[in-house]
Amino acid sequence: MPDVFADRRGRLRDRCAAAGSAAALVSRPANVRYLAGGAPPGAVLLLGAGEDALLCPGPPSGDPVEGRLDEALRVAVLPAAGADPAVAATERAQAAGAETLAVEEHHLSVARHRAMAAGAPRVRLTDLAGAVEQERIVKDEDEITCLRIAAEITDQALGELLESILVGRTERHLALELERRLVDHGADGPAFPTSVATGPHAGRRGHRPSDRRVEEGDFLSVCLGADYRGYRCEIGRTFVIGTSPEDWQIELYDLVFAAQRAAREALVPGTAYREVDRAARQMLDSAGYGDGLAPLLGHGVGLEIQEDPQLAPDAMGKLDACVPVTVEPGVHLPGRGGVRIDDTLVVRHEADGGPELLTITTKELLAL
Amino acid sequence: MPDVFADRRGRLRDRCAAAGSAAALVSRPANVRYLAGGAPPGAVLLLGAGEDALLCPGPPSGDPVEGRLDEALRVAVLPAAGADPAVAATERAQAAGAETLAVEEHHLSVARHRAMAAGAPRVRLTDLAGAVEQERIVKDEDEITCLRIAAEITDQALGELLESILVGRTERHLALELERRLVDHGADGPAFPTSVATGPHAGRRGHRPSDRRVEEGDFLSVCLGADYRGYRCEIGRTFVIGTSPEDWQIELYDLVFAAQRAAREALVPGTAYREVDRAARQMLDSAGYGDGLAPLLGHGVGLEIQEDPQLAPDAMGKLDACVPVTVEPGVHLPGRGGVRIDDTLVVRHEADGGPELLTITTKELLAL
Repeated sequence: MPDVFADRRGRLRDRCAAAGSAAALVSRPANVRYLAGGAPPGAVLLLGAGEDALLCPGPPSGDPVEGRLDEALRVAVLPAAGADPAVAATERAQAAGAETLAVEEHHLSVARHRAMAAGAPRVRLTDLAGAVEQERIVKDEDEITCLRIAAEITDQALGELLESILVGRTERHLALELERRLVDHGADGPAFPTSVATGPHAGRRGHRPSDRRVEEGDFLSVCLGADYRGYRCEIGRTFVIGTSPEDWQIELYDLVFAAQRAAREALVPGTAYREVDRAARQMLDSAGYGDGLAPLLGHGVGLEIQEDPQLAPDAMGKLDACVPVTVEPGVHLPGRGGVRIDDTLVVRHEADGGPELLTITTKELLAL
Repeated sequence: MPDVFADRRGRLRDRCAAAGSAAALVSRPANVRYLAGGAPPGAVLLLGAGEDALLCPGPPSGDPVEGRLDEALRVAVLPAAGADPAVAATERAQAAGAETLAVEEHHLSVARHRAMAAGAPRVRLTDLAGAVEQERIVKDEDEITCLRIAAEITDQALGELLESILVGRTERHLALELERRLVDHGADGPAFPTSVATGPHAGRRGHRPSDRRVEEGDFLSVCLGADYRGYRCEIGRTFVIGTSPEDWQIELYDLVFAAQRAAREALVPGTAYREVDRAARQMLDSAGYGDGLAPLLGHGVGLEIQEDPQLAPDAMGKLDACVPVTVEPGVHLPGRGGVRIDDTLVVRHEADGGPELLTITTKELLAL
């Protein structure tokens, strides 16, 4: 529905006007997609200076549009090859009489920003900062539906892998098979590079799959997610390979599971981001694993796999309802391996049943 | 061999000193990898202010190092979570007494650049511009060996696909199978998202694989490449599905083939970049296909799949020996499909046998 995107653009224009700038230029790709529905690579969105317009690099290269572009939106393709749409948009803003233009200084490079200023010297460039990222934090039900479908696809792909023979296969092949299954079940692609970590690699955050083969007695940790219509979810699970896990494996798993549950149970509207992080972190810390912990134990998901809010010790802010986040504590013991447990959930009010778990694959310690 | 990286850093320091800045900060990931051998995500390289050092985000997150880090290089991990290594490096340069620091203004965001200036007010930030990218254009034989292996892997993956049944399979599945085969043959991964385009999609540059199935009589165009030790190559081929191609398919194929050959034959040291582009472009233009052509008909490859030089109408500069480039003209007829032919070659002197073709899969029009 195009109106969704028009409403989002309207909210952003209002926000800019309140901040003293009638016009804004959005260049960060996920922000452009959020406001325009879709865009070819490199497109930028000009708001509040004449008619809203999506400026696309030219000439038409047949580059695919990501997502479905809002038909209500004016689209201009630059005639000149290699011309920067951000510069063209700034010139257009000046021609429309804009005195100031709020731009994404956290995304634009210094060199690009200078070219924009030079191209339209009568426009004063101000900072839009994270205004669009802030708008993106709370999702509408259509966005949550996309995330729910992405999670269903992810659970299916993971479930099928668990039914297959794993011993002797390499991390790389298992990761590729998971990605193939994601697409088989309707994903537009993986939400991020699939991580499969075996034995001493298990539990490492962002481990890149290697040629190591799965062995009896290994911990096996996987982290994957589907991209469905641009919306990205994440699941992480850890298993043991073979008959029965060893005591240290059971103890470590139970600890990480308890920490992850504590953080999940903290997902209530009004809870400070840092409190969610602390719920898990202090449990791992008091068990003696505080040092190796990741800087954040969870984060928002949506059009990007890692977006606001950050669930970290120094994060400012409180959870709202309808904010999807990951909860992903892990412990890695160098040389021995480790455990990571990662879910995607949507923050909901108690009255609505509390946090909605999107990734429902079991978190029992399975021996495969 | 670490000395390779030390030599590269030495050349860059000399270049900066000649430009009036003793110290430089490299932040663009491919540039950091080129000079350091490898780096964890987000690491930056400080040169010429005290001992050269790689500054990595902290705390140690177990993030994998891309590539093999030069052991001769000093590595510092930031203690504080979320601290920006570029800001820490600027402060370190100030502490080392540097008056100016050349930074990559085409990579650093305006917001980051401001934080760096605020963190070290006594250091004047200047522009390193594309100095490292320029150093990267001419490859040494070790780099070319990596590209040659990447091309061998790519040819193997493509060759196996051609022996399999294609009719009825979707673009997505063929793309995933090609990527799996790349890894089977030793690639670290695909060099870029594999493109498989059938029927009316064929010949579209950067086409994202869809659920369309291969049909009799289709053009089928594929574009893929392997990443081997960070070095990325590219091959594109177009085939017809079924018994014998139609006349329009043969004519279009012969035209694109002739244009691609003309550009390949122009790959001689001393030839202007734009002349290589023109060799192919004017042939397609005079045949009436000038409008839909891509802005560039080839580009350098290396640690990034698209790097300098650009083979485009307005490109400045001349080819050197030992510069690997793609030559990739294509024509797409909306609604009907089209042809793309893409090779990776290394520019060599006539005396050395002329351009070295790395991607050797046949360019005959095969009917599969």
